[in-house]
Amino acid sequence: MPELPLSEVALNAESSVIRDLLHHARRDGVISLAGGIPAPSTFPVDEVAAAAFRALETRGPDTLQYGLTEGDPELREWASDWFAERDRAPGGDVVVTTGSQQGLDLLTRVLVDPGDTVVAEDPGYLGALQCFRANRAHIVGVPIDADGLQVDVLAERLADGLRPKLVYTVVNFQNPAGVTLSEERRRALAALADSYGFLIAEDDPYGLIRFEGEHPRSIAAHSDRVVRLRSTSKIVAPGLRVGFTIGSADLVGHMVVAKQAADLHTGTLDQHLLRELVVEQEPWLDDHIAAIVPTYRAGRDALVEAVTSTFGDDVLWRVPAGGMFLWIDLHDGTDTTAALPAALEEGVAYVPGSAFAVDLPNVDALRLSYATATPEQLREAVTRLARALRPT
Amino acid sequence: MPELPLSEVALNAESSVIRDLLHHARRDGVISLAGGIPAPSTFPVDEVAAAAFRALETRGPDTLQYGLTEGDPELREWASDWFAERDRAPGGDVVVTTGSQQGLDLLTRVLVDPGDTVVAEDPGYLGALQCFRANRAHIVGVPIDADGLQVDVLAERLADGLRPKLVYTVVNFQNPAGVTLSEERRRALAALADSYGFLIAEDDPYGLIRFEGEHPRSIAAHSDRVVRLRSTSKIVAPGLRVGFTIGSADLVGHMVVAKQAADLHTGTLDQHLLRELVVEQEPWLDDHIAAIVPTYRAGRDALVEAVTSTFGDDVLWRVPAGGMFLWIDLHDGTDTTAALPAALEEGVAYVPGSAFAVDLPNVDALRLSYATATPEQLREAVTRLARALRPT
Repeated sequence: MPELPLSEVALNAESSVIRDLLHHARRDGVISLAGGIPAPSTFPVDEVAAAAFRALETRGPDTLQYGLTEGDPELREWASDWFAERDRAPGGDVVVTTGSQQGLDLLTRVLVDPGDTVVAEDPGYLGALQCFRANRAHIVGVPIDADGLQVDVLAERLADGLRPKLVYTVVNFQNPAGVTLSEERRRALAALADSYGFLIAEDDPYGLIRFEGEHPRSIAAHSDRVVRLRSTSKIVAPGLRVGFTIGSADLVGHMVVAKQAADLHTGTLDQHLLRELVVEQEPWLDDHIAAIVPTYRAGRDALVEAVTSTFGDDVLWRVPAGGMFLWIDLHDGTDTTAALPAALEEGVAYVPGSAFAVDLPNVDALRLSYATATPEQLREAVTRLARALRPT
Repeated sequence: MPELPLSEVALNAESSVIRDLLHHARRDGVISLAGGIPAPSTFPVDEVAAAAFRALETRGPDTLQYGLTEGDPELREWASDWFAERDRAPGGDVVVTTGSQQGLDLLTRVLVDPGDTVVAEDPGYLGALQCFRANRAHIVGVPIDADGLQVDVLAERLADGLRPKLVYTVVNFQNPAGVTLSEERRRALAALADSYGFLIAEDDPYGLIRFEGEHPRSIAAHSDRVVRLRSTSKIVAPGLRVGFTIGSADLVGHMVVAKQAADLHTGTLDQHLLRELVVEQEPWLDDHIAAIVPTYRAGRDALVEAVTSTFGDDVLWRVPAGGMFLWIDLHDGTDTTAALPAALEEGVAYVPGSAFAVDLPNVDALRLSYATATPEQLREAVTRLARALRPT
């Protein structure tokens, strides 16, 4: 086998820890709370089949032809309006992306030169950290707490000379920590973007999976320096790979040029069938979201109850009001990475906090997902977790 | 509107000339020979609808769930075997990509550091040139002729010190010039790759749309330094966005890591329905290709006849034995870029040779597609073209 003339990025890249883990978690009898995978029971299988059929029947070969790089015009218009209403923020120009992951990658491509600084939440979404590394960014972590990104810490660093091009935040029910950025911090972050001239990438795949309280306004309500990454993976289905990036016409135009080189355009059939569901059958999506939220709420309730009764209240930063993840902070120095093999041996999988680290090690933290397992499985998983992490 | 902190790539990127052109070509009454768009009449609309339905019925929510980054295992295995048989070359490891355009982008990402040299055909495929620019490669053009890439010219440049990481070639019915790399040159190029240690990206979207003669062996039959980019856009449908990159396990492994950051994975429904068609219903695809080839052959025949009877035989390098494109070399200094507005005024659209240039200007050349227009339209288009380019 020949030696490959690899790029520096490829030489230094590591496969996602989560993905490597999933191989172990697939063993018989292991209850996996590791993946961020939506519950298959929430997927509208029959509706998608009918929508695909209708799209192919009514629009024929157009549904299989090359499409515009920026995406289907009606779907783009819908996305601008629909998210504007829910986010209580202005609409914008839209590029349809191959999942919102691609939106982040294209955004990074058009902003970041090698060595440019990007701010990420610490702990933060692993896919974003991989994307920033792939684009040779210099990643600076800013810690989060129960109210999300610590914007006061960011302000101090900016005052000390930090000059990021981009600040990335998962604003609602963050991955991995399940926390939501407070209203006060959203305003403060927007003001910092306006003062220092960076852009904010506001990612929100989980925000509409809400169990109680009101969906907060997007940071875009407070500044025009906000780019919104929006996903249909958790509210329709991830396998369709249709995301939206909403921003200024100028920025979106640059992303469209970058997308031509990246994959020409997002799947036409996927876009057309989604349009059948969300545009032609409006308000199907709102009804569907209302129908699937109870599944996740039941998971959250079961997991929170089992965790607090087993490990105590103080291992939680806050009970998540939505989304898919519970962050456990053991506060006792347990090395959750080292303990993982024992946990798998007991029959439970989780993701150690270290996997999400930028700088902070999160040695004794872990992320649990309540999205896929049943309430019974979640309770059993916590019992196994206690045996692995706090053996008597 | 805020000023954007753009990357150098974004500041310097230009939108595809072809795409900007298509806006004009869509005017009423214009016959467009500009796009590289497959004939919609060749799309298996009913078969795709049935395959989508079967995939959703038999595999349920799995067809809408997140998938493995490397792609569906059965589809990957099929791709390795099916292309090995047709290319008469060994199989390999496979990553399913969001169109073969993404395969090229991921390959470039894992090989090219900013400033690294990539060799491209001159004239060459615009999407490849955009991809190399987006990845900050130094692009060196090597001229082509009726037998494809001039490998002897490449050999001289290598002897003079040129050290590319990658040599990119569209081996069969090249875009834009319709030429096919000769067997002798394939062997010579493979030998150069082995001597100098570069990789060959062998792109082949058109090879199986063949009107006469035998599909030649892939360069991969002669060297293990060949990465094969394969597409289903012209033989099934482009809107599905399913491509394959076939190469060594090592290289494909690096591309899979890069793909995690780029878009997580290619659409699951698109992959599952394609699998229904090409794996479960084998040999459906061979039958389908045989059924669609006559459409393109009729277009080729009509266009070649009209062009040679209007402009003479000497404007063609060679009659293309397949694919979608005819390259016209006027040899008379006509500036085809400057003449484009007059051609659109006459009601015909083409792509000027300059659009495909790396270094060679191709001032008096143009690319015509016979893939979409009917034979009647093709004949009328050539009449209009003559009025615009050679007014009496």
